[in-house]
Amino acid sequence: MSGRLTIVGLGPGDPRYWTREAADALQTADVLYGYGPYLDRVPPRDGQARHPSGNRVEGARAEAALSQAADGALVAMVSGGDPGVFAMAAAVCGEIDAGPDAWRAIDMQVVPGITAMLAVAARVGAPLGHDFCVMSLSDNLKPWDLIERRLDAAASAGFVIALYNPISKARPWQLGEAFTRLSRHLAASTPVVFGRAMGRADEAVTITTLDKAGETEADMATLVIVGSPETRLISRPGREPLVYTPRAAAEALA
Amino acid sequence: MSGRLTIVGLGPGDPRYWTREAADALQTADVLYGYGPYLDRVPPRDGQARHPSGNRVEGARAEAALSQAADGALVAMVSGGDPGVFAMAAAVCGEIDAGPDAWRAIDMQVVPGITAMLAVAARVGAPLGHDFCVMSLSDNLKPWDLIERRLDAAASAGFVIALYNPISKARPWQLGEAFTRLSRHLAASTPVVFGRAMGRADEAVTITTLDKAGETEADMATLVIVGSPETRLISRPGREPLVYTPRAAAEALA
Repeated sequence: MSGRLTIVGLGPGDPRYWTREAADALQTADVLYGYGPYLDRVPPRDGQARHPSGNRVEGARAEAALSQAADGALVAMVSGGDPGVFAMAAAVCGEIDAGPDAWRAIDMQVVPGITAMLAVAARVGAPLGHDFCVMSLSDNLKPWDLIERRLDAAASAGFVIALYNPISKARPWQLGEAFTRLSRHLAASTPVVFGRAMGRADEAVTITTLDKAGETEADMATLVIVGSPETRLISRPGREPLVYTPRAAAEALA
Repeated sequence: MSGRLTIVGLGPGDPRYWTREAADALQTADVLYGYGPYLDRVPPRDGQARHPSGNRVEGARAEAALSQAADGALVAMVSGGDPGVFAMAAAVCGEIDAGPDAWRAIDMQVVPGITAMLAVAARVGAPLGHDFCVMSLSDNLKPWDLIERRLDAAASAGFVIALYNPISKARPWQLGEAFTRLSRHLAASTPVVFGRAMGRADEAVTITTLDKAGETEADMATLVIVGSPETRLISRPGREPLVYTPRAAAEALA
């Protein structure tokens, strides 16, 4: 008998971002898995088991959840943001791909969520209003020269760029290097947005420019958006500026 | 006195995708604006005015909503998917940018939503699990040769590619041309996913390959995901295959 594994996107951190589908999936599960701080966002329910785990054990967490689902349980795995964007869905698929046949029989569902770039973009206007690229800046799972090649390709073709996992204690120089690399293609005045912990008490949003972007603090929870040559600011009396990228490409790029 | 304009993302079509924040914003508004079929998804409420409009009048719709907000009303504009991804947020910012000073004083809020690529990706596994690009294939607002340059840049750098607005009656050949262009860089066996109307009665999802992608029907409501050289299928007994892109880059790309 095979159960179900539902990977549930919680969005950036505040329950305001939960979808109805996410709330329903968490309510009906027998057992919850997830990174401890994400699991802490879900109110406890009588009779529902909880298995929090650490940040760096995605593979082991996926294995445990799949094993329990294969045994017939209704398992939910919570994920920050959207499970499919630099989060748990690809990790679970990788374990199924490499795992026993029984795991392919599991009813696996993914519940999409508000990924960080959408929450940060919404907070400042519409910086992702035109074509854009989405990259993880972590070189744990890919070589740095591939990251540089992708930064070059994205910036030179006029894409806005959203950067996940921009920096960590073990990777202190990569974000600065990325800004330097992007400066080969983009003007010093290109708008750059930093956003972290959207909707939480420690929310922080900074709107700056590419030449000064290295001065802004960032951590693993920060999402960075680097504008294209078309990204614009609208100044407003008594409010932060709006940042947006027009839907129409400028003549200059044509 | 200035009111508020909240641009609300409803996700792909089924209320399961609504966030709590979206439901609250729709509930508290005095007046709703939006494309008719999107507005029809919102249950009527006594005392709340509704202004449905057509598909091709984003600018006029944004102007009307901004004028009413500037007069002090609590206005909500509904948007399909996420307002910031090829939807209403950039159109409203453009009107503010070009409009009277009073519009800059409006409290403008964007409520993010589940954009189509996240819903389609969730439905089939995790095809956006590694770096990816997001493009509108419409050449109404940018020249076709810029679109081709971006397709070349994205595919040759190993990005997965999500295509919005792939085809319409007025743009019948662009999607086929895009597949031909991408075939210069990608193997014939590259996975391609078509998804439309997620969560609705007429939902349709097709998993195919790049060499056969031109045979699949698509329309303006279809979202197309073209894999990278690393995107894989996992076959499953009695179920559709899972499509995913591993988090780690293959050695071959390094």
